Amino acid sequence: MGVTITDIRHAYARIANHTHFTPLISSRLINQLAGCDIIFKADYLQKIGAFKARGACNAIFSLDEAQLARGVITHSSGNHGAALAWAAQLRNAHCTVVMPDNAPQVKQQAVESYGAEITYCAPTLSARESTVDQLITAHERVLVHPYDDDRIIAGQGTAALETLQQLSKPIDILMTPVGGGGLLGGSAIVAKEPGCPTRIRVIGAEPIMANDAWESFNSGIRVTHSVPNTIADGLRSTLGARNFTLIRNLVDDILLTSEARIVEAMRLIWTRLKVVVEPSAAVPLAAILDHPEIFSGQRVAVILSGGNLDLDQLPW
Amino acid sequence: MGVTITDIRHAYARIANHTHFTPLISSRLINQLAGCDIIFKADYLQKIGAFKARGACNAIFSLDEAQLARGVITHSSGNHGAALAWAAQLRNAHCTVVMPDNAPQVKQQAVESYGAEITYCAPTLSARESTVDQLITAHERVLVHPYDDDRIIAGQGTAALETLQQLSKPIDILMTPVGGGGLLGGSAIVAKEPGCPTRIRVIGAEPIMANDAWESFNSGIRVTHSVPNTIADGLRSTLGARNFTLIRNLVDDILLTSEARIVEAMRLIWTRLKVVVEPSAAVPLAAILDHPEIFSGQRVAVILSGGNLDLDQLPW
Repeated sequence: MGVTITDIRHAYARIANHTHFTPLISSRLINQLAGCDIIFKADYLQKIGAFKARGACNAIFSLDEAQLARGVITHSSGNHGAALAWAAQLRNAHCTVVMPDNAPQVKQQAVESYGAEITYCAPTLSARESTVDQLITAHERVLVHPYDDDRIIAGQGTAALETLQQLSKPIDILMTPVGGGGLLGGSAIVAKEPGCPTRIRVIGAEPIMANDAWESFNSGIRVTHSVPNTIADGLRSTLGARNFTLIRNLVDDILLTSEARIVEAMRLIWTRLKVVVEPSAAVPLAAILDHPEIFSGQRVAVILSGGNLDLDQLPW
Repeated sequence: MGVTITDIRHAYARIANHTHFTPLISSRLINQLAGCDIIFKADYLQKIGAFKARGACNAIFSLDEAQLARGVITHSSGNHGAALAWAAQLRNAHCTVVMPDNAPQVKQQAVESYGAEITYCAPTLSARESTVDQLITAHERVLVHPYDDDRIIAGQGTAALETLQQLSKPIDILMTPVGGGGLLGGSAIVAKEPGCPTRIRVIGAEPIMANDAWESFNSGIRVTHSVPNTIADGLRSTLGARNFTLIRNLVDDILLTSEARIVEAMRLIWTRLKVVVEPSAAVPLAAILDHPEIFSGQRVAVILSGGNLDLDQLPW
């Protein structure tokens, strides 16, 4: 039956002592440029520098002792790997992370810094999954999938839960980037729960160069083959099965945006909010700038998903 | 007789409705690396992206109507120019800014965006001053010097005043970068005022490549000729006369640091605090990293002075 708002509330109770309550920030100049009021949820200040700490923490604290003793494994382009490594360390569990060999170095270093073991593979979903399968067979590790996992979806949903608690005024739209769909799916459950006092539209933002979620959402058939090639490295993963169902049922729209616009939005966030976010986190603002007719005059909450990037590999 | 704590309190009352109350931030990892507890005052989030808004605002709101009608003029490598332009606009006064022709483009644009007129000159103190003198003679503008001015010193001192109000526990050391000496001088008046319940050491941080304040402080003779060549463009100005006296009387020490260390400290702030600061703002952390024996186990407040820089001209 999938994740419910109750699961997300339980996840929040499970993780709140281990994660940060991150602030909301905004910029008058960005609002002027965008023609709407944007409230940014600063989850790049979350543990490990990304919202992914939420899902990983919920998953690890949902395991029993026997599972912990087997150790956990996942595949990740970066932040989920660091998040699982961090959360596993909180419970002294062994952690293996299968990473594509083109993952940013800073994300590889983060995974190592939390004491996890890295196995590299080719940067495709099939290579990731087959490498994980081999390691599970060999070592009996417990899989914690980066997004196609109810515990992960429930954990990621806590970012939206926290945001709605913090807001001083109701919002019209809640936006997140979409890669595997954990954050977008979890956020949609929160925003669409029947008890929510106002109607909130939920919109995902995705790079044109990694448009599998957009294609899946619009065609009704989940795209499982894709070779994403976007600067938004956190969004190179392919929409999960659970996530696809959630998004088809609950999300209002997915908007695409270009690489150039993502870089522009990232610069705008860096120069105006004076904060360091990674390209994936800039994708919702890029989509807003690309679709002013949708956002004009609206009050929009945007989850700034992460702040981990190689400063030596900036796109300018 | 110079600026007193009362002047700084009056300045704060004068500017508080126009400026931001900026937060304090910290990073456990930076504290581990530095071997001390550092509380950063996030004044890069101040109006115009730098503490300079404080002094300029105090100066502009100290002028009478006749002075306002004449218009104001200053010379600045950037942030003071933007600050004076911004403050002048609040009172509809004309503003002229004399800028060195090597000032960062983003700082030139900021001055223009607040409606001020820019006149370019060679990047030396004498070129700045003679250009200003000519314009004052021609147009009867009111000079608001970037640092050798009691109103400016009093205004800059409000950053330290605010910091001491915000701190939950007393500090051992207060650090600021030193260029012309407005921020360091104003901060020293606040930290050394007899009513301050605990003894606070005040330390300035300066690039080796712009070491005129260090040389003046140590020799007792103010250096007035210097050709600074540091990445910390906000600190290329030469220590002012009033500022020199203040610093000799009240400051405990000035520490030097290298260009490489400034870049390292700036990267550390960007990656760990996830905030965008300009090189000048990273100079105190660089000096801390260079002098661990001075800071070991201490509680240190550092004013993060500004966040304006060309993202196309990063030092890596």
